[in-house]
Amino acid sequence: MSLSFHHLGIATVDGADLAATFAGLLDAPIVHEEGFDGMMIRFLELDGDYFELLEPRGDGPIARYLDRQGPGIHHVAVATDDIGASLERASDLGIDLVDEAPRPGAWGHTVAFLHPGSTGGVLVEFVASDSDGANRTV
Amino acid sequence: MSLSFHHLGIATVDGADLAATFAGLLDAPIVHEEGFDGMMIRFLELDGDYFELLEPRGDGPIARYLDRQGPGIHHVAVATDDIGASLERASDLGIDLVDEAPRPGAWGHTVAFLHPGSTGGVLVEFVASDSDGANRTV
Repeated sequence: MSLSFHHLGIATVDGADLAATFAGLLDAPIVHEEGFDGMMIRFLELDGDYFELLEPRGDGPIARYLDRQGPGIHHVAVATDDIGASLERASDLGIDLVDEAPRPGAWGHTVAFLHPGSTGGVLVEFVASDSDGANRTV
Repeated sequence: MSLSFHHLGIATVDGADLAATFAGLLDAPIVHEEGFDGMMIRFLELDGDYFELLEPRGDGPIARYLDRQGPGIHHVAVATDDIGASLERASDLGIDLVDEAPRPGAWGHTVAFLHPGSTGGVLVEFVASDSDGANRTV
């Protein structure tokens, strides 16, 4: 199984403003932007890796996260070339799954989340590598 | 200026346990371990990037962070080939600096932190690229 860092998800109340800050600070331009699942999602690229800015539009998990925790880093996404095997391995390790099976995510990705309670408070997302390449040229 | 993702810092009450979980889940082995600044620090490698597990030993900023926020993702570190210029650019953008000048970090790195209040609640650390290479072969 081949695993690598893919992106860092960030909960924000103003994605356009934060994108401008990260563009200026880190030379990380917006490479993809879409409304998805009650959020405005912006992906910024940093040398082949990404920041995913999650801005709620209305109520939902990110709005509730912002109320509870405030803005900041929300999750880490790891690319895997076998998302089914990655979920099976998580289960075998006794890690609770948020998504029992891979599902569609933003930017055409196929994704699955694990419960942060099983991973030291870190919300881990798997992204299927083969759902990624086609989306990098936006 | 050349910038890239370097590591994700994670605050934890039990770094050995979390390292074992991440080794099993993500094939991310411990590549460096040291006591530093009142913490036990463990770096895990994931395909050339790192997780830095920060476990407090006694009181200090990470112990207080754990009390306040609970365990989880604490900061993101970006490698820069010109840490002085990166700090200057941050200042020019009106971003508050935690470290006005680069200072020694764990694993022999030269580092500087920015105030998360200026970057959407995201604690950003710069790591000088030229302080890194020598430390990757542990």
